[in-house]
Amino acid sequence: MTIVEIRIELKKGVADPEGKNTMKTLQSLGFQGISGVKTVKLFEVELDAPADKAQAEAEEMCRKLLANPVIQNYRVTVR
Amino acid sequence: MTIVEIRIELKKGVADPEGKNTMKTLQSLGFQGISGVKTVKLFEVELDAPADKAQAEAEEMCRKLLANPVIQNYRVTVR
Repeated sequence: MTIVEIRIELKKGVADPEGKNTMKTLQSLGFQGISGVKTVKLFEVELDAPADKAQAEAEEMCRKLLANPVIQNYRVTVR
Repeated sequence: MTIVEIRIELKKGVADPEGKNTMKTLQSLGFQGISGVKTVKLFEVELDAPADKAQAEAEEMCRKLLANPVIQNYRVTVR
């Protein structure tokens, strides 16, 4: 059993309205000194495969389903 | 400038329909040996504060806005 962590984040320059609104709301609650909030999507996938195969398979999952290559980058970490 | 990573995940036993549907879709695409998919929300916050203060402030953000303590756990990591 291998657990892979798939981290999907927006590419540089792509708007992150959720992050922006979170920042505004935090500021309106009195938090100061925030210069940016970025949102990231994480999937933890339990795979019945050895680490190297799990890594390759998770990257394939990103290409086929989880990530949109136009606006997102992905990174796979085996835990 | 400190970057804190705020990781918000569902508590054990709380339903994760997004994860479940992602798993089903991956299986329907031919991926085998998946025994679970869990979704996690991540915020990267840039704070104008030293590391220890940033950590405390991020935890306060979770309590006040970002996490729902009934169904979610949060973890703050200073990078």
